[in-house]
Formats: sequence, C-alpha cells, structure tokens
Amino acid sequence: MLALRVQKKSVSLKNIDKPDRTDEALVRVLLSGICNTDLEIARGYAGFKGTIGHEFVGVVEESTDGALVGSRVVGEINAGCGKCDLCRAGDSRHCARRTVLGIHGRDGAHAEFLQLPVENLLPVPKNIPDEHAVFTEPLAAACGILERVSISKTDRVAVIGDGKLGLLCAQVLALTGASLLLIGKHSSKLRIAERRGIETATPKQTAKRKRQFDVVVEASGSASGFGLALDLLRPKGQLVLKSTFHGKTELDAARIVVDEISIVGSRCGRFTPALDLLKKSAIDVDSLISEEYPLSNGVHAMRRAAARGVLKVVLRP
Amino acid sequence: MLALRVQKKSVSLKNIDKPDRTDEALVRVLLSGICNTDLEIARGYAGFKGTIGHEFVGVVEESTDGALVGSRVVGEINAGCGKCDLCRAGDSRHCARRTVLGIHGRDGAHAEFLQLPVENLLPVPKNIPDEHAVFTEPLAAACGILERVSISKTDRVAVIGDGKLGLLCAQVLALTGASLLLIGKHSSKLRIAERRGIETATPKQTAKRKRQFDVVVEASGSASGFGLALDLLRPKGQLVLKSTFHGKTELDAARIVVDEISIVGSRCGRFTPALDLLKKSAIDVDSLISEEYPLSNGVHAMRRAAARGVLKVVLRP
Repeated sequence: MLALRVQKKSVSLKNIDKPDRTDEALVRVLLSGICNTDLEIARGYAGFKGTIGHEFVGVVEESTDGALVGSRVVGEINAGCGKCDLCRAGDSRHCARRTVLGIHGRDGAHAEFLQLPVENLLPVPKNIPDEHAVFTEPLAAACGILERVSISKTDRVAVIGDGKLGLLCAQVLALTGASLLLIGKHSSKLRIAERRGIETATPKQTAKRKRQFDVVVEASGSASGFGLALDLLRPKGQLVLKSTFHGKTELDAARIVVDEISIVGSRCGRFTPALDLLKKSAIDVDSLISEEYPLSNGVHAMRRAAARGVLKVVLRP
Repeated sequence: MLALRVQKKSVSLKNIDKPDRTDEALVRVLLSGICNTDLEIARGYAGFKGTIGHEFVGVVEESTDGALVGSRVVGEINAGCGKCDLCRAGDSRHCARRTVLGIHGRDGAHAEFLQLPVENLLPVPKNIPDEHAVFTEPLAAACGILERVSISKTDRVAVIGDGKLGLLCAQVLALTGASLLLIGKHSSKLRIAERRGIETATPKQTAKRKRQFDVVVEASGSASGFGLALDLLRPKGQLVLKSTFHGKTELDAARIVVDEISIVGSRCGRFTPALDLLKKSAIDVDSLISEEYPLSNGVHAMRRAAARGVLKVVLRP
C-alpha cells in the first residue's frame, strides 16, 4: 500500500506492506489531514521514523469486534499499554508506554490503511461528512482546553494564532459565552472567525489591551506568541500552551513569579465532545480546508501545508 | 539615618532623611533580613533605586492609629492604591499601582526607619523573638505556595533548592503530610531539613525518580533547577516557580504541552499563616541564620549573603 513516510528528516512516498496485527482493527483511510505536528516531525521533532499522520476518517475493514466492520470511524491517537493505572482509569493519553498514531512508535494515517486498537475507534454519525469528520482529532484538541482550565461567561479570553488550530480553539471557546478575541496576522484567516461573530485583532492592535485577559491560549507556535500572551494576561491569569513546536523558547521566569501566572500545557482532547460539535454543525470546518490532494501527491501536499496562508491540506488515498 | 541603598548596580551605605509621610506608620527597624531578591536588585533586577530590604521586624514609633504606637510589628510589603478592585477585595499584592517595600517605588527595610501604610502592619505575638519574626515575610512566601496549589497527603512533592527559601518551603510543605523530598547540593544545608525528618537528595540521586512527582517547587533560582523540575514531574503534574531571578530561562515548550504540565508562579504569601507557624515554633528558623552584622556593615553583609554556603544574613540597625 502507499504510505507517506518520514526518515532522517526526509518525507517520501513508499510502497509498504499493509498493517497485519490481528489484535487491532484494520482501517481503510478515506481522508487524512496534515497537521503542523506532521511538519514538525518531518523536521525531526519527536525523532519519529515511519508513516506520519494522525488526523483521519476511515472505514473498518477487519476487527476483533465484528460489529465494527464496515463502520465509518475516527480514532483516538494514543494507544496505551492497557495495564497501568492511567489506562485502567480509561485515559491512555499519558500512559508512559503508549504509542501514538504517526507520532511515536506506531505508523500513521497518511496511508491507504492504518491500524489501531478497537477501543480507540469511535463511529462517526451519518450526518457528518468525511470532510468534517477528518477534523475530529484537532477539534478534540481544541476542546481539550476546557479539560484543563475552566472558562466562565465573565472571562476575557484571547487566542493567539490564526492557523487551523487557533481557528478551531477560537470557535470552541466562543461557545462558552466568554468574551473572546482571536489575534492573528492574516486577514483572510481572521475573516473565518469574524464570520462566526468572533472579534479579531492583529498583534499590534492589542497594544492597549495589555494585562486585561483572564485566559490566553497560545496556538501560534512562535516565541513571539508566547511573549505576547504574557503581555496580555492579568496578574494570576492563565496561559494555555497549545502548540508543540520544535526547539526552545526563552522564558522570563521572574514575570511568571511576580504576576503569579499559571501556564497550562494542553495536548489531546477527548473525541466525544468534538464529534458532538461536528454533528450539530457548531464549528465551521469547511472554511479551514485549503487544498486536497491524492495521497500519491503527498510529498507536494506536505510542502503546500507548510506554505504561508495555507490552512488544512487533506489527503485522499 | 543610615540606609543601605542601591543605585546603578552599586550598593552603598548612605545617611538620608528619616521617612516623613504622615499618612503612614513610621517603624523603627529592629532587625532586617537579606533576601536573594536584594542581591538580584543590586545586580539590576526590577530597576530599583533606593533603600533595599523587605524582610524586617520593628517597633511602631508614629502612626495615625495611636493604639499601634510602641507595638512590635512585621509588615506586608505590597502597598496598594486602595481603590482598585483588588485592593478593595483586601489583596493588594497584584494592584497595578502598588509600591513594594525595597523593591518597587518605596524605600525598604535595611535602614534605621521605614514607613508603611498602617493596614500593612501586623503585631508580633510576644513569644516570637525578633530573630524569628524577621522570617515572617519569606515564611509567608513559602506558605503562599498553598494559596496557589492544593497539596494532599497522598501527593509526592519535591522542593528543588536548599537555600533559605527552599528550606522554608520544604518545612512548610512537610506540614501538609505529603511525601516530601528536598533536593540540594549542600550537605550542611540539607541537614537542616533532615533534622526535621525531611528526606533529602542531591540532584544526581534523583535520576531514578523521574516522572514520579505530583508537585515540584523550583526554589533554586537556576535554569538547571527548572529543567530538573520538568524531569521529575509526572504527566499533568504541577511545577511551582518560586524564585525570581534575573534573566531568561530556556523553556522546552513542547514538553509542557505533551505532558500537560502546569507551571504556577508564586510570589508573596499572607502573613497571618506565617505568624501562626512561628508562634507554634513549627518551623526551624534558628538554623537558617548564618551571620548577623550591624547595619553600618551592610555592604559587607550583602557580599557575605551572596557567598556560597551562607544562608540568612541579618542586619541590626
């Protein structure tokens, strides 16, 4: 089968064997989405070798749970050991021995087939088209912010970054009823949020709003975004770090201490809330797809996904 | 009067006028303590010019509240505007227009006299000697950790740094009943904690305890302490930043996101819990005083406070 693989900081399309673990479900990929993490992995982040990709919708072809065969599914990307306290409590996202689809120890979704444990798969409601379902994973990540911080209607919240993750975070947080500002540099991207009634600004336009926000979500993945987040937060405010990016960021630790800021890391979220939002069409994901390519064009698609102004690029096997 | 002053990164003893604001209390300083923040200020941190020092015990000589005259007192170091929402709610520690004793916009405690608003002063119970009362402010800062994170008996907690702040933090946190480890490099300092029944280790000795702690308090003020704290924390653990230090620290942001770590800044604490602990002799502060000098020897005392192996240095006007 075709698969988009990373080895030694180089991405290439390869013909490899179909996955064949009989203790897991075999999923035929219908559509996969390129995430910034894929681009980071291609640059060496996480030291991963193998098939990349962790955002997908597919159809179960083989499964130990026969009832699942033929179902259209999405899949939680962390596969735990099943034995540790975390896994037993039903949350393998931090299992120390986990594998992660297309990120750590497990081939991913930019391929004709993938495999995952049966318990990772969730059926997709019929009214959600493939082009929406493929956003379940990144939307779950945006919803995951609310697993880490509680946001009330009276909170003043800013999201930094108008990329695909920032736009999803802004839309999810807008649903809390909190006062929300999306900060970005691309007017065409900001307009997607504006169409949903979300206030937007460029970083420069926030100069008069320093120290005014209760919660700031950093979803730009840049060191300047981190500095801006600290500028915007009130004392005792909460900074949610949402982007995984390669390399080190400079941190003004004294500022965090003096203003008693909390910095909260947030990675993966649960899929059920995301599927609920997609089922209700509560999130505009159509506007987030910039380009679609056949998987056979995957190397080019990766380059396009890294280009300025491009939002989600999806691959169809 | 004599005062220890900082100007242009230089510390010197000066003869200046006694404070004369009639709307505040005038306090004759009995004893003041040199904090690492004083040393940082002398190196340029916070851009402060004037009399340094914020740890003290003294006697009220003049006050708009006549009943206070003659009382032995300690004083909260943040003086708020009295008008903003924070000040009205009774907590001026984050008032945007606050002055801070010996740190920001207000002459400090390494002097014969200081002044503070009457509402900042707390009478010292008789059974607390001056040499203990002078620790009220740093002990309150240690207690302040518990205002920012909740620690239960089942938590595994580590404190990094065996300096005076680390030793106070460890002693306060030991009282929660949590399993506690103090990590430091100086056997003589670690012994102070060991005498209180606190387990200690050098950084090297923690190699097998990575990802095992629920809460880690960084009180070493070093970049290596920050890195060690991240190593020791379990996923979703909490890192309490307690040290203000000058300069930038490198931060592996991806790690905070992937492991969903929370970083919590903690600065000043309330004085009442600290006075309660001193009254009950629940904290060994005697062992923390390394040297005492007359205020007239203040410049030398500052050098001694910065010397390796030296804990608290106190000044007597």
